[in-house]
Amino acid sequence: MAGSSFGTDFKITTWGESHGSALGVVVDGCPAGLYLDKADIQAFLDRRKPGQSKYTTTRAEGDEVEIMSGVFEGKTTGTPISLIVYNKDQHSSDYSEIASYYRPGHADYTFDEKYGFRDFRGGGRSSGRETIGRVAAGAIASKILKTLNISLLCYTASIGDIDIDYDRFDMAQALLNPLCMPDAEAAVKAGEYLDSLRSDGNSSGGIIECRISGLPAGIGEPVFDKLDAELAKAVMSIGAVKAVEIGDGVKASRSTGLDNNDSFEIKDGKAVKKTNHSGGTLGGISDGSDVLLRAHFKPTPSVSASQTTVNKDNEEITVNIKGRHDPIIVPRAVVVVESMAAVTVTDLLIRNLSSRIDNLKKIYL
Amino acid sequence: MAGSSFGTDFKITTWGESHGSALGVVVDGCPAGLYLDKADIQAFLDRRKPGQSKYTTTRAEGDEVEIMSGVFEGKTTGTPISLIVYNKDQHSSDYSEIASYYRPGHADYTFDEKYGFRDFRGGGRSSGRETIGRVAAGAIASKILKTLNISLLCYTASIGDIDIDYDRFDMAQALLNPLCMPDAEAAVKAGEYLDSLRSDGNSSGGIIECRISGLPAGIGEPVFDKLDAELAKAVMSIGAVKAVEIGDGVKASRSTGLDNNDSFEIKDGKAVKKTNHSGGTLGGISDGSDVLLRAHFKPTPSVSASQTTVNKDNEEITVNIKGRHDPIIVPRAVVVVESMAAVTVTDLLIRNLSSRIDNLKKIYL
Amino acid sequence: MAGSSFGTDFKITTWGESHGSALGVVVDGCPAGLYLDKADIQAFLDRRKPGQSKYTTTRAEGDEVEIMSGVFEGKTTGTPISLIVYNKDQHSSDYSEIASYYRPGHADYTFDEKYGFRDFRGGGRSSGRETIGRVAAGAIASKILKTLNISLLCYTASIGDIDIDYDRFDMAQALLNPLCMPDAEAAVKAGEYLDSLRSDGNSSGGIIECRISGLPAGIGEPVFDKLDAELAKAVMSIGAVKAVEIGDGVKASRSTGLDNNDSFEIKDGKAVKKTNHSGGTLGGISDGSDVLLRAHFKPTPSVSASQTTVNKDNEEITVNIKGRHDPIIVPRAVVVVESMAAVTVTDLLIRNLSSRIDNLKKIYL
Amino acid sequence: MAGSSFGTDFKITTWGESHGSALGVVVDGCPAGLYLDKADIQAFLDRRKPGQSKYTTTRAEGDEVEIMSGVFEGKTTGTPISLIVYNKDQHSSDYSEIASYYRPGHADYTFDEKYGFRDFRGGGRSSGRETIGRVAAGAIASKILKTLNISLLCYTASIGDIDIDYDRFDMAQALLNPLCMPDAEAAVKAGEYLDSLRSDGNSSGGIIECRISGLPAGIGEPVFDKLDAELAKAVMSIGAVKAVEIGDGVKASRSTGLDNNDSFEIKDGKAVKKTNHSGGTLGGISDGSDVLLRAHFKPTPSVSASQTTVNKDNEEITVNIKGRHDPIIVPRAVVVVESMAAVTVTDLLIRNLSSRIDNLKKIYL
Repeated sequence: MAGSSFGTDFKITTWGESHGSALGVVVDGCPAGLYLDKADIQAFLDRRKPGQSKYTTTRAEGDEVEIMSGVFEGKTTGTPISLIVYNKDQHSSDYSEIASYYRPGHADYTFDEKYGFRDFRGGGRSSGRETIGRVAAGAIASKILKTLNISLLCYTASIGDIDIDYDRFDMAQALLNPLCMPDAEAAVKAGEYLDSLRSDGNSSGGIIECRISGLPAGIGEPVFDKLDAELAKAVMSIGAVKAVEIGDGVKASRSTGLDNNDSFEIKDGKAVKKTNHSGGTLGGISDGSDVLLRAHFKPTPSVSASQTTVNKDNEEITVNIKGRHDPIIVPRAVVVVESMAAVTVTDLLIRNLSSRIDNLKKIYL
Repeated sequence: MAGSSFGTDFKITTWGESHGSALGVVVDGCPAGLYLDKADIQAFLDRRKPGQSKYTTTRAEGDEVEIMSGVFEGKTTGTPISLIVYNKDQHSSDYSEIASYYRPGHADYTFDEKYGFRDFRGGGRSSGRETIGRVAAGAIASKILKTLNISLLCYTASIGDIDIDYDRFDMAQALLNPLCMPDAEAAVKAGEYLDSLRSDGNSSGGIIECRISGLPAGIGEPVFDKLDAELAKAVMSIGAVKAVEIGDGVKASRSTGLDNNDSFEIKDGKAVKKTNHSGGTLGGISDGSDVLLRAHFKPTPSVSASQTTVNKDNEEITVNIKGRHDPIIVPRAVVVVESMAAVTVTDLLIRNLSSRIDNLKKIYL
Repeated sequence: MAGSSFGTDFKITTWGESHGSALGVVVDGCPAGLYLDKADIQAFLDRRKPGQSKYTTTRAEGDEVEIMSGVFEGKTTGTPISLIVYNKDQHSSDYSEIASYYRPGHADYTFDEKYGFRDFRGGGRSSGRETIGRVAAGAIASKILKTLNISLLCYTASIGDIDIDYDRFDMAQALLNPLCMPDAEAAVKAGEYLDSLRSDGNSSGGIIECRISGLPAGIGEPVFDKLDAELAKAVMSIGAVKAVEIGDGVKASRSTGLDNNDSFEIKDGKAVKKTNHSGGTLGGISDGSDVLLRAHFKPTPSVSASQTTVNKDNEEITVNIKGRHDPIIVPRAVVVVESMAAVTVTDLLIRNLSSRIDNLKKIYL
Repeated sequence: MAGSSFGTDFKITTWGESHGSALGVVVDGCPAGLYLDKADIQAFLDRRKPGQSKYTTTRAEGDEVEIMSGVFEGKTTGTPISLIVYNKDQHSSDYSEIASYYRPGHADYTFDEKYGFRDFRGGGRSSGRETIGRVAAGAIASKILKTLNISLLCYTASIGDIDIDYDRFDMAQALLNPLCMPDAEAAVKAGEYLDSLRSDGNSSGGIIECRISGLPAGIGEPVFDKLDAELAKAVMSIGAVKAVEIGDGVKASRSTGLDNNDSFEIKDGKAVKKTNHSGGTLGGISDGSDVLLRAHFKPTPSVSASQTTVNKDNEEITVNIKGRHDPIIVPRAVVVVESMAAVTVTDLLIRNLSSRIDNLKKIYL
């Protein structure tokens, strides 16, 4: 049991259900002296907020964060930072019906099997709202990374079969269009695709890419807590993710050594890679080039079209899931992937502080 | 630091370098009363042993395991099980040259950057030999799973662009041919492909699939220690893995909700899924159907063809890496993936023992 | 960093400062199906509430708990249980002065040295109010233990040099008198002693004893996570504790093998110990007899009499610490010791579920 | 399960039984670049070696250590350090008899109850030989501490009722006399006391004191992983320890605030404590003065005089435990206490590296 914590030295513990009174996170191990205020965290939460376009549920969630501890006079104190978001708009009524059956693609069945019963209100702990804690913690991690000149770039790389065109790549676009696609044309096509799916009561999957820049070489712990291994767990632990790629990812398995190896060259007097098939990691340790990861999201399982399933009385039934559902999870999940990547990298940066005895001397002598 | 342990309640800690005196693993948390002898573990180690075909290095490694603790009168005692494999055939000389430069695709550069220097003999801790500890531990986990009627099936699904044909799927084949492919025809084609690569001093990547059968529903801990998240970390932590898929994996991101959702039906009086796009997990908890994962391996980075790189004196040089290298990592890695999956599932089965207060009553009242 | 969590499988994470907006705890790993309501937790918190006698600060703290997650329809769901207590009565003004100097016996100096600055309001994270999270979690653990017929008995064994007389031991008394002493005569003497100290602006230390009954044999994990080792950490982590004894404790070091060994005899057909010098543990594993521990508390460091110390300007000064302070910590700490013991035992009971392969068969086959 | 690891960032995992083929430890998280050779570790192991006087068993154990991994060209590499000591002198025969009954004061009964059976050869995992792994790891930790100008001083403070006289304190003595007492007169008296006990087939308990000097202020993690809490667990986890004191320890519970508080004064321009009742820790964080701890050891449970106990057939029997047993555990345990203290402090020093954001800037910017 006890699977709600992530990280070793920078550790986050999330709690809360879709329709409980609140959700939150405790961030333990944040270094003291970091300037932090509510706005830093709210900015991240607002990026996952629904009701911002026709492609995201129109529930007007407030999702306003409160800092309950760990910050004094505008700076982190080194003690646990507790962040809370109260559930304003609960509408349990909307969900009372689904208590009686197992929604295809949801965790209703597995929670019942594991625990003997479940909080059926909006999926309870398995709801997408669980990610509020991840994102609030990610905002803190990102502030730490910024202090160290490390930055993350996350965006929608594809929706269904509509991929962005890297020749048209424009990150500004990703912040403008509701689908977070850094390619205006692709965003329009994807929008039309989603409209048609919505009218059929259907939904779509998609891909999120994340690029971490400025990470020094040497981050990641052999052999199990490799940078890519920790990132894979961090991202795969997000509800709808079904695959994680690092660098060339699935392409690497079709490639050859001569094509896949990144040769080293000298730039500004130091060794750097000419290419980046590896995605910024060699032997699970950052190699100084950008870290590249891709997360594959399944389509929103809640669709309004008819589906067959089973109810508590073991009867096969046909259901049409009511309620307001996103036709795509991806746009709101971009900040979730970014947050989990930020938390993972921050934890590994802290863990690496003791990689050399010289570092201890630098701090203590 | 300290990244050489994996698992929470069933915890393995591996140690050892390619050319140290030995490699090993300590398995802590193995339940008492499990029948275990050397042969159980040797059988697993023999599956990763090199020199078994022209597609694997011809080094005649003994890799004979010794049980140093934790087993008494043929049964596990509940105390740590220490397993050791001595390095018989070290040939440091073969490797002395590579001390001077960074092999493309290897961890030479990142270890130097992280620790300030490295054990350059055969890659030291970043060598494939590190997996000996994983496999020895995996043998114990597999014995526990067998006791609970849970079985794992792992095999090579593709080499380069040669995929197995599921209509010809025959697991017996995978045990016969040196490439572990459950499709005789594909194995022949893949062999020819590898021969041509080898003659060019090149190498190939490939895909390993793993199927876990008999796992009860309810295994996996929300929200971070999900079954699929732990599997993703376990498999991505294997040296050459660049992508991990669960169920439909990357295909899910191109799919729609109606196509991707698995409907429930009643079979033998209980709810089961009609299809298995999810790969045996819903909300990160096992759903009673087979768990399916795919691991994408990059090509062997050590190739004999010329490559450009950088040496310790910051000079750009051209190198031809000598020594005996597999043209493909995949066949020997099949048992490594199986072992990591077995360890992961065993740990989560133990962690789930406390999911219900009724379980505590069953054991203690 | 990250030292605010305790427990492996039953894990509690506390947060909050003396004068922040709230304090709380997240309990992760509580089995599902446990009946739990607010009253179970409030009953424990009320035992540590101040203002209940002249021997405890007269601040009228509400300390009302709210269950924010993890409980649905009166039962635990298996997901994290978040408990919060809002700070009603903060009076930062009372404390503003101490910001300028280091109170003797307090953590002011060490927090400044560790973090570079501190939340000086009432000690911040190092305040006794930090124990609110421990006690709230202890209430849940105690409910689990009760379900398994395991009970804890904690009381004040001495204040200054006034020890309880075991011939007059009467637990009912401990619940009646404000000092939690199970000996009416000793309680009166101790009260007089505290009155005289208070009039001198002084304070007293004392001893708390805890007896755990009904714990089955076999609980505790060799070699580091022994039952007594985990209890020692749990209790020593409470602010003012300076020593922990198990069984005969310090007396054992003066004793001989023949006097200290507990002989076994047969009772009701099974092996039991004739005596209990060991305090219920052999080799760090429960032996079926009562677990006995003693916690030694230092006197309240905040005293109104004059003391010399140093201020931020590195000047030696004389201070009289204002504010409302208990002349003794012990009575309010009884429930804290009980709570930490309950959490420790619950975690070890869960960890022990996998001690035998037969237990896994019992649950999964 | 899984209780054989200690430490978070500097993590040791021990394994092995009294009469298995070997015992050992894996040290994971040791910083790279530390000069380390076999002699550093052997020196520590030799201090716990038996057969060195009539007060310790005359078994001629070799206890020679081998470094199996993690050290290259005389320096630690940052990868796990595996240390092994082979069991030379096993004499299972000596122990076969005790398989049939439960030795008073030993873990025979509790291991049977926990695991269903036990390795009865010399106590198996519960034997004092288990401490070999602790001491080998302690040698490495001590080398790290020495590099940071932190030193530990451990010695026997009392045997039975014979206490050392601090006016005669002479550490050189502790290294000369077989009882590790820094007081020649006390050592002689204690020796006579032990001779008389031995002739009665009896044994004695005793006290070990440990002083840690040079530890910077700020070490220890609130609120659960306090310096004193971690030390309490580390020391209480040693087989025969029944009580742990920090600073004034048990005396603090009899004291008053004015007597127990340590006033601050200015020395060499910085704040220091005038006295050290606290034993070097305030709020669980090191305060810059020496850390003082006392460990109370019970008498050797194995005595040759007659004792009554119970056998496997549930019969009450009288036994005389044969074999070679120390009349006192303490002298050989001095280095064990020192080792556990060293490991604990090293882990907390590493954990504290991230206490301030400025430390991360110092290393990464």
